[in-house]
Amino acid sequence: MSSASQKPRLRDLGPTIGYMPPGPLNAITDVPGIWVGQTTLIYDEPRLARTGVTMILPREGRIWKQPAFAGYHAYNGCGEMTGMHWVAESGMLSTPIAITNTGQVGAVHQAMGAYAVAHSLTEEFELPVVAETYDGWLSDMAALHIQPEHVFRAMDSARGGPVAEGCVGGGTGMICHEFKGGIGTSSRVVEIPAGQYTVGVLVQANYGVRRDLRLDGVPIGQEISLEKIPSGWGEAPVHDPGTGSIIIIVATDAPLLPFQCNRLAQRATTGVARTGGFGNNGSGDIFLAFATGNEFDPGVSTPVTLQMIPNAWINPFFVATAEAVEEAIWNALIAAETTTGFKGRTAYAIPHEDVQRLWKKYGRGSTL
Amino acid sequence: MSSASQKPRLRDLGPTIGYMPPGPLNAITDVPGIWVGQTTLIYDEPRLARTGVTMILPREGRIWKQPAFAGYHAYNGCGEMTGMHWVAESGMLSTPIAITNTGQVGAVHQAMGAYAVAHSLTEEFELPVVAETYDGWLSDMAALHIQPEHVFRAMDSARGGPVAEGCVGGGTGMICHEFKGGIGTSSRVVEIPAGQYTVGVLVQANYGVRRDLRLDGVPIGQEISLEKIPSGWGEAPVHDPGTGSIIIIVATDAPLLPFQCNRLAQRATTGVARTGGFGNNGSGDIFLAFATGNEFDPGVSTPVTLQMIPNAWINPFFVATAEAVEEAIWNALIAAETTTGFKGRTAYAIPHEDVQRLWKKYGRGSTL
Amino acid sequence: MSSASQKPRLRDLGPTIGYMPPGPLNAITDVPGIWVGQTTLIYDEPRLARTGVTMILPREGRIWKQPAFAGYHAYNGCGEMTGMHWVAESGMLSTPIAITNTGQVGAVHQAMGAYAVAHSLTEEFELPVVAETYDGWLSDMAALHIQPEHVFRAMDSARGGPVAEGCVGGGTGMICHEFKGGIGTSSRVVEIPAGQYTVGVLVQANYGVRRDLRLDGVPIGQEISLEKIPSGWGEAPVHDPGTGSIIIIVATDAPLLPFQCNRLAQRATTGVARTGGFGNNGSGDIFLAFATGNEFDPGVSTPVTLQMIPNAWINPFFVATAEAVEEAIWNALIAAETTTGFKGRTAYAIPHEDVQRLWKKYGRGSTL
Amino acid sequence: MSSASQKPRLRDLGPTIGYMPPGPLNAITDVPGIWVGQTTLIYDEPRLARTGVTMILPREGRIWKQPAFAGYHAYNGCGEMTGMHWVAESGMLSTPIAITNTGQVGAVHQAMGAYAVAHSLTEEFELPVVAETYDGWLSDMAALHIQPEHVFRAMDSARGGPVAEGCVGGGTGMICHEFKGGIGTSSRVVEIPAGQYTVGVLVQANYGVRRDLRLDGVPIGQEISLEKIPSGWGEAPVHDPGTGSIIIIVATDAPLLPFQCNRLAQRATTGVARTGGFGNNGSGDIFLAFATGNEFDPGVSTPVTLQMIPNAWINPFFVATAEAVEEAIWNALIAAETTTGFKGRTAYAIPHEDVQRLWKKYGRGSTL
Repeated sequence: MSSASQKPRLRDLGPTIGYMPPGPLNAITDVPGIWVGQTTLIYDEPRLARTGVTMILPREGRIWKQPAFAGYHAYNGCGEMTGMHWVAESGMLSTPIAITNTGQVGAVHQAMGAYAVAHSLTEEFELPVVAETYDGWLSDMAALHIQPEHVFRAMDSARGGPVAEGCVGGGTGMICHEFKGGIGTSSRVVEIPAGQYTVGVLVQANYGVRRDLRLDGVPIGQEISLEKIPSGWGEAPVHDPGTGSIIIIVATDAPLLPFQCNRLAQRATTGVARTGGFGNNGSGDIFLAFATGNEFDPGVSTPVTLQMIPNAWINPFFVATAEAVEEAIWNALIAAETTTGFKGRTAYAIPHEDVQRLWKKYGRGSTL
Repeated sequence: MSSASQKPRLRDLGPTIGYMPPGPLNAITDVPGIWVGQTTLIYDEPRLARTGVTMILPREGRIWKQPAFAGYHAYNGCGEMTGMHWVAESGMLSTPIAITNTGQVGAVHQAMGAYAVAHSLTEEFELPVVAETYDGWLSDMAALHIQPEHVFRAMDSARGGPVAEGCVGGGTGMICHEFKGGIGTSSRVVEIPAGQYTVGVLVQANYGVRRDLRLDGVPIGQEISLEKIPSGWGEAPVHDPGTGSIIIIVATDAPLLPFQCNRLAQRATTGVARTGGFGNNGSGDIFLAFATGNEFDPGVSTPVTLQMIPNAWINPFFVATAEAVEEAIWNALIAAETTTGFKGRTAYAIPHEDVQRLWKKYGRGSTL
Repeated sequence: MSSASQKPRLRDLGPTIGYMPPGPLNAITDVPGIWVGQTTLIYDEPRLARTGVTMILPREGRIWKQPAFAGYHAYNGCGEMTGMHWVAESGMLSTPIAITNTGQVGAVHQAMGAYAVAHSLTEEFELPVVAETYDGWLSDMAALHIQPEHVFRAMDSARGGPVAEGCVGGGTGMICHEFKGGIGTSSRVVEIPAGQYTVGVLVQANYGVRRDLRLDGVPIGQEISLEKIPSGWGEAPVHDPGTGSIIIIVATDAPLLPFQCNRLAQRATTGVARTGGFGNNGSGDIFLAFATGNEFDPGVSTPVTLQMIPNAWINPFFVATAEAVEEAIWNALIAAETTTGFKGRTAYAIPHEDVQRLWKKYGRGSTL
Repeated sequence: MSSASQKPRLRDLGPTIGYMPPGPLNAITDVPGIWVGQTTLIYDEPRLARTGVTMILPREGRIWKQPAFAGYHAYNGCGEMTGMHWVAESGMLSTPIAITNTGQVGAVHQAMGAYAVAHSLTEEFELPVVAETYDGWLSDMAALHIQPEHVFRAMDSARGGPVAEGCVGGGTGMICHEFKGGIGTSSRVVEIPAGQYTVGVLVQANYGVRRDLRLDGVPIGQEISLEKIPSGWGEAPVHDPGTGSIIIIVATDAPLLPFQCNRLAQRATTGVARTGGFGNNGSGDIFLAFATGNEFDPGVSTPVTLQMIPNAWINPFFVATAEAVEEAIWNALIAAETTTGFKGRTAYAIPHEDVQRLWKKYGRGSTL
């Protein structure tokens, strides 16, 4: 069990995913300068909250003035991630990234902008990146729990190091493949002749139907009967499974250009697809990738000198992204705890022993 | 002078744009069911406000439950129009459209969602469409003037009929081609064998440099010297003209499909380009088009029957969009009044007599 | 063993993929009106050919005059599929679809256009859809084997019924996951309250590295050592695996609109990702989806009446696409035969007994 | 009259467009290393030809092995420009660019690929960029006049220096705004603190209706009656004006990244819109921009060092593109000669004296 989060992670149970080695923390914070801060709201009165906000601050928060090349991709766009017109046009991410619940994108957006102006982090109002998934099944979303101070606290508390997973921050009330979901993270180390780089991923996982859930190809979801562990979504209509969404942030310290960030963002799809996501109709499966390997003052009047990983060496980054996404989703599932919330509904954590048993049953993990 | 808005419009001065006839109101509200509501905040204490919010409610506000096919296009994406992932994926607009200032996208977003839930306009939180342009030169944007009640009032007061233009709603503090800008609207009637349809446009015009401003090709901007009428932007750096943006909403009652709405949205570019816009680097020139000609319950479980204008007959809609965009921008300029605001700065209205004089000088409008 | 193709298919060996039932032929031709024709060129003199062309003719060839709604998606765009600007703008597919080798896109393009004009299939030159993957490892591609008559023959011989798979048509010289690849097809039947529809898929599979190959999650590729079965690509550099590509055509008789076809096309990604494709750097992984459920004369001057499957019911089409893509890839692999070609190189067929053995070893298919 | 082409150009008649200075040749060849070669086919027997092919070879033809960053944009996509999947994915242009007639995209594509392999310009088959507009009104397009040797000749003869305009190369049979159209070129010099750069444009202009044609805003097209100069398109249906298209190539020696090339390509729209193009339904208005300012070996295994013009300084490139596009279209119109072709049809050149007269009548060009 990893000491940092005090919760087990997938690798603590035995299974691993893919070929590539994770970074020391197996977290997005393995990418130098990436800070994560989370505010978690869990209380029953006056109105029930199982919600929060997760903030990612690239460049130790200096992202407001030192943008990073970025790109995005939507596997299914029925959700929100603000700021993407800007990313597409300018090629750059210029604000921290917030992930919260569907009903409070606006509140978080307003708070981030106001905070930046108040703290002189930026000269003008920037247009922040705020993404969301829906937690209204477990949390009284209409109560609009998140206040500016919760956003400020997430930003102020952001730092490197281990990242709390499961029912924390924006992921507090999330459900994934009809088990309790939430925040998960993972990373991979890429070794190419040009050097060693890290790809880090953070997900807010709230998508998918049970029967489709897979662990490195092992059909875990099929095997865990709904009778034994009731569905997190309750009466979700059969024709519209996966009413949730998944937001994925991919970070790397490699010097990738914006079009290469687009490519990385699309490879998050690969990880989701392998884990059992089909990009269902109602999903907001929106993925943002950014690369901190180039740093420059956007206001200079001379040509900026940059580095670029040649396309011919980008495949390891693609594989790293896919592997880290799958593992981050599983880390979210493994860390999440059974949660009872709004209207007495319960979303059940996936039983760790079932994961271990099925992993073995399907011919994997001889060492378990 | 048109009686409705009590302010002159371009046609009141003589010039007209294009070949196609406008609708009775020459406004987006010529499209049946389109309601517009605006809240204007103008005061100097305790902190100076020259700002507001403009709301467009398709289907007389029933858009929350009766979506309309929609599409969008960015001429230059350095701005925000939330909700576009959803539009692109689902092909539909499912919320009203708000246009406000850059610093309060979040506040308006939050208010719209909360209002809809509180009034049972939608079953779940939707992800509203909120667009913005920057009014921080004339308004103390950091004061965050816009409160939920301002948004509610704009929604509650929305109705058909004439639309106030110039320094109103979201356009209150805007500057266009270095003259005072703001809200403008126009429409065109499309007659094709399939029937008669209307294309209506509303703009929040806040873009451009003076020298590039044109009226149906007449180089108005070149002729009005900066000495005589100082620039609205003051010391805007020469290398980055047009630090503002333009948001354009195109509505039609024709039965267009989503991909045809994308096409219409892109033709807003044509209108902007003809008026002197280059889609400058810092601009958020983002255009949304929606078509109310098909109406259906999105929740049915049978195939929905639709109508579609064949592509072979879509050209008149393209021309109508371009013409109405150019005229809407000019209506914003003509209606706008010289405004002194934040830090004592003044943005000057374009002198109507100069417009008339130059129109004539350049060989147009023999009837003036 | 299926009688039609006289070659085994995946299901003949035992494994099945997914939850949804295939159509009667388990082929793209289960979609009514879809015709497939293939010309296969295999000879050693005067220059060695292991190549060909595969043609898909929607609407029994009437597609030239009766277009079908369509959309496309690129998982990785380093390849060619002509005609996609047209599809994106008009929302329609207006020509048959050809798949051939990289070096003869032009020849096939020219032949298709000339054929259509000569046979009065269209009034003017249309811009045909021609896609490609690279077969230069097994075939002397620079010999430019494909002549107009080969294209004409493929079009003339196109018909419904079983589709030949493996080393045929455009797939003759292809390599997939370092085994012999080629053409594969599969279908799924979608049952929703609105009715019963079919999703059919045809792939030209030429992508991937061995270790990544999976069968419904079973890591087949990892287990088949390169010592035993040498790689189809020989000395392909470790840093650039999967120098090939995969072209996927998705057809349905459901009344989907163009934006929904885009969505279906993107779900081909899901199937490729599950089978072990990462959309590698050099790949042309380009996917086209079209829907024949609406048929109309594009030249009418009245609004066209259409049907649309509501988005709320589109998920089964997503799953159907992903499942059929995975099974079509496997059908290509299973049907393909060990092939020796250019410069004496050999691409080995995947051993069927290994597939069956590993399927069982990893806990699947108790009935085998 | 410019000595090089022996045909008059717009500036020879007096009018100029915009603020920025052209390069010495006022041609795409002002961008260092850009070569243009054209093959023109004009004969009446055995079947009538008014067609050809225009080739642009960046980097003096070394583009096959030394790619250039590139991007593209479609104003209206109902046409063809092959190779754009590759450009979008890799960010790079890797082949010369051909522009020809609609019916022979395939022939030119095949010839380019074969030529490159035969001359060892590339190791493998590349996927060339071939664009087209329709010349079937003036040329017997079904005769398929263009043979491989015509393509080879255009490539072999390509060089820097003045570029022939009007009825040459791919533009031989083209019609623009219902006057005789064809090939046109122009350039602009961009001076920014970072240095001096050139933007060069080449168009194959075959789009538009007469009444919409403008010269820097002067409504030339409205004034030249169809009675006096019959329409180039004859009986073109009123509801579908502009059955042609325009292909635009934008080149610069500035170090722009791929996303910046996308931005430049989109600004070609600005130039077309100002000249009177609405991106009509049947048009293939597809624009490619590439930047030679960075040059590197794509096969290296170390990070590549690049330069980038900061976004804050990109506006002059936007204006330069728009100005050069408008002037290139006018150069095509001015250079084109009245042409009688297929079925005895005649497309009339725009009368130069009318252009000069109307320029003056509408208050411009006091020096004429």
